[in-house]
Amino acid sequence: MSLAAASIIDQLTTLLGANSVIGLPEQMGNYLREPRKRFHTGAAAVALPASVEQVQAIVRWANENAVGIIPQGGNTGLVGAQVPLRGDEVIVSLGKLDRIRAVDTAAGTMTAEAGVILENAHKAAEAENTIFPLWLASQGSARIGGLLSSNAGGVNVLAYGNARELTMGVEAVLADGRLYQGLNSLKKDNTGYDLRDLLVGAEGTLGIITAATLKIFPKPEDYETTLVNIAGPEAALPLFELLRARVGGRLNAFEIMPHLGLEMQLRQGMLDADPTASPSPWYALIEVSRMAGTAPGALQAAVEAAFDKGLIDNAVLAESLADRTRMWAFREQMSEVQSKEGASIKHDVSVPIAAVPELIAEGIAVAERLVPGIRPVPFGHMGDGNIHFNFSQPVGADPKAFMAENDEKLHEAIYAIVLRLGGSVSAEHGIGQLKVDLLRQVKDPVALDMMRAIKMALDPKGILNPGKMLG
Amino acid sequence: MSLAAASIIDQLTTLLGANSVIGLPEQMGNYLREPRKRFHTGAAAVALPASVEQVQAIVRWANENAVGIIPQGGNTGLVGAQVPLRGDEVIVSLGKLDRIRAVDTAAGTMTAEAGVILENAHKAAEAENTIFPLWLASQGSARIGGLLSSNAGGVNVLAYGNARELTMGVEAVLADGRLYQGLNSLKKDNTGYDLRDLLVGAEGTLGIITAATLKIFPKPEDYETTLVNIAGPEAALPLFELLRARVGGRLNAFEIMPHLGLEMQLRQGMLDADPTASPSPWYALIEVSRMAGTAPGALQAAVEAAFDKGLIDNAVLAESLADRTRMWAFREQMSEVQSKEGASIKHDVSVPIAAVPELIAEGIAVAERLVPGIRPVPFGHMGDGNIHFNFSQPVGADPKAFMAENDEKLHEAIYAIVLRLGGSVSAEHGIGQLKVDLLRQVKDPVALDMMRAIKMALDPKGILNPGKMLG
Repeated sequence: MSLAAASIIDQLTTLLGANSVIGLPEQMGNYLREPRKRFHTGAAAVALPASVEQVQAIVRWANENAVGIIPQGGNTGLVGAQVPLRGDEVIVSLGKLDRIRAVDTAAGTMTAEAGVILENAHKAAEAENTIFPLWLASQGSARIGGLLSSNAGGVNVLAYGNARELTMGVEAVLADGRLYQGLNSLKKDNTGYDLRDLLVGAEGTLGIITAATLKIFPKPEDYETTLVNIAGPEAALPLFELLRARVGGRLNAFEIMPHLGLEMQLRQGMLDADPTASPSPWYALIEVSRMAGTAPGALQAAVEAAFDKGLIDNAVLAESLADRTRMWAFREQMSEVQSKEGASIKHDVSVPIAAVPELIAEGIAVAERLVPGIRPVPFGHMGDGNIHFNFSQPVGADPKAFMAENDEKLHEAIYAIVLRLGGSVSAEHGIGQLKVDLLRQVKDPVALDMMRAIKMALDPKGILNPGKMLG
Repeated sequence: MSLAAASIIDQLTTLLGANSVIGLPEQMGNYLREPRKRFHTGAAAVALPASVEQVQAIVRWANENAVGIIPQGGNTGLVGAQVPLRGDEVIVSLGKLDRIRAVDTAAGTMTAEAGVILENAHKAAEAENTIFPLWLASQGSARIGGLLSSNAGGVNVLAYGNARELTMGVEAVLADGRLYQGLNSLKKDNTGYDLRDLLVGAEGTLGIITAATLKIFPKPEDYETTLVNIAGPEAALPLFELLRARVGGRLNAFEIMPHLGLEMQLRQGMLDADPTASPSPWYALIEVSRMAGTAPGALQAAVEAAFDKGLIDNAVLAESLADRTRMWAFREQMSEVQSKEGASIKHDVSVPIAAVPELIAEGIAVAERLVPGIRPVPFGHMGDGNIHFNFSQPVGADPKAFMAENDEKLHEAIYAIVLRLGGSVSAEHGIGQLKVDLLRQVKDPVALDMMRAIKMALDPKGILNPGKMLG
């Protein structure tokens, strides 16, 4: 690094104006504090560009001066991709680029800048009687650029895909400051390499996404939602297959939660009532969308068919918005409730769907063997093979001691099972700085070499989010 | 090129055995003749590897000796990507790698080698009561590797996506002969750059795909199909929106054809009966899938709603498999019938869906002004914004003179309209050698530079399908 922090601040101020640069560490808190509270490094400065041209100016300057820059959206990422690693980087917050440039219902697209908050994208779509179906817990603060850069998932991937699948085109500032103008509304375009999908999910290491053309969809007439009692994940599998066969692409969500998660939320007063029909070892939250002009009842008919086949033994269908909201709260609060129950060790993993029951059974068994009294609360996107394999500390244990003794040990044990089952050690949260070492250990070395070659080709000076993903 | 053809044949024979190398030009016909009959260059040899290891051995050898290699599947590509450009290249036919390695209905995946013929992939899926929903005219000879390398589209992109969207993972031999082992059955995997989507659609310039994990879907209980009379493409747009809102993801196909296409097919005896309700300037072929346990009639109800809104004035619903087959034959034979009607000038283009009517109206107007008597037969995937904007020669004109005088002129005129509408000059067929110059003219120079940098990073000696796509 050739420039001193003071010089960095001066030069950025010249580029952007005084109100668009934060140089005092005590004013950087919002940009440095991240949700997992694992990373605590400072930054040389925070830059707040107000236009794509200003982003280009920053990157051009950074490239000339070999200054590392970290693109940041809503700062909600869970693997530390959006916060500093070394301390001498400049955080480039895209928050001011928050314009929705266009909503085109005929084309089925919305063009949104990187700083648009997800919830505002939802509202813009709904104002035109459409939906932008990327829904996740942090939607009130997560921003489009970060969501795309981390290829975010969420609860409706089953029907609509993850962020990558919801993106038709991106605009991005490259390492030399040039603008890649890849916005388009084309469903088909076979004119060259898929640069869009390379930039999406690259965690800002190949370019800074400044805007995207996103897919929007007709708003369903209604949703049908049920919370089903199941004996365990192995019982969820044939139920999922039955639903997939009966409702296909209208199956929005197929999530599973263990009873302990319900117990915790009721104890913590996070639910106004028990949303389940009766106690059961596990629950499946299933939602189907009903399109205009289609008769209601598809989900009820499927649930009845599942009863007849003996796949389930009890269920409750949402009969009001309040019912539906409560069922979803149970699902959405699974992660939050753990923070109220002491320390927790988390894994965002995926396996082929058929292997989910094996993953959960083995993961629980090994954890209980390693840490007597540990409380396994695996839950999540069964339909995507994506389980948030979380563990809460034993009741009464010391949180810090629990983490110090068991964090690494449990990671190793869970990841070993995941890899044996052909799975991924990061299903939707990404690599960032949290999983750099892990990636190096578990990823196909040929794939790693390809990634390094691409990184070197597109960012030869390594200024874009240095040290993230590839180390 | 450092090796003489004789030496190339000798060395390949040492690697593969005598029966796996074709060195005599007169035996290469099947590998050189391509469907458009535009490219007529010879090859140094045709190699027929029987295993992934043999593909690796060929590529390693080619890289060491700077020999250009051209991966080839079913040789059905329409832009010359799969046939030689210079004449000193080795064609590597993947035809012997034709094993379906696995079909996993629980995971919803099939793992197929590059040489599997699409129709055989269909059969393997159907044997398990599932579908692999990539359907196109050349499915009896097109092979998986080529379909993925060209990111093939087809008639069901609307519901299921193109080849890229149907691919979960690929295995590919890289330029240095190493194997990228990217096969997986994971719906979510955020561990690094999206190498899969980079290899898919790269036309064999970044690696040779040897196998892929493909998505399979529950087999619909039934299909509902209709052929609707419409006044023109502008009338198709609100009809498409109505269907998208009512049946969403179950809308398989929304294709449009002009009356002239019907007239030609009836005249040429290609249809056993007229599939339409009554004559009309244009027709829309619409198909909806019905999942198990769902009541039939969704399409009929939608068609009735369209009548009520005055969007259409006549329609026929398929009442038998014969009806459905005839309707689809009308659509599928649109391209073939043109070859019976003399010379034709073709464009595979896409625009944002809302711009399709403007594209067609302007394209017809400009063509009729430039070439009096020309017969416009634009048709295709309205729902994807992808029109095969084809023109048949005037009746009685000399085919060669027609092509010589008008081919370039019409291309220029049509592509100018497409680009003004924010469209793509190659929607599903790719670049190959046919559109290399065109790509250079119309593509964002920043995107071209990114592509060249990636190509250089992954194939520094330029041995993989040299001269294709990037020139």
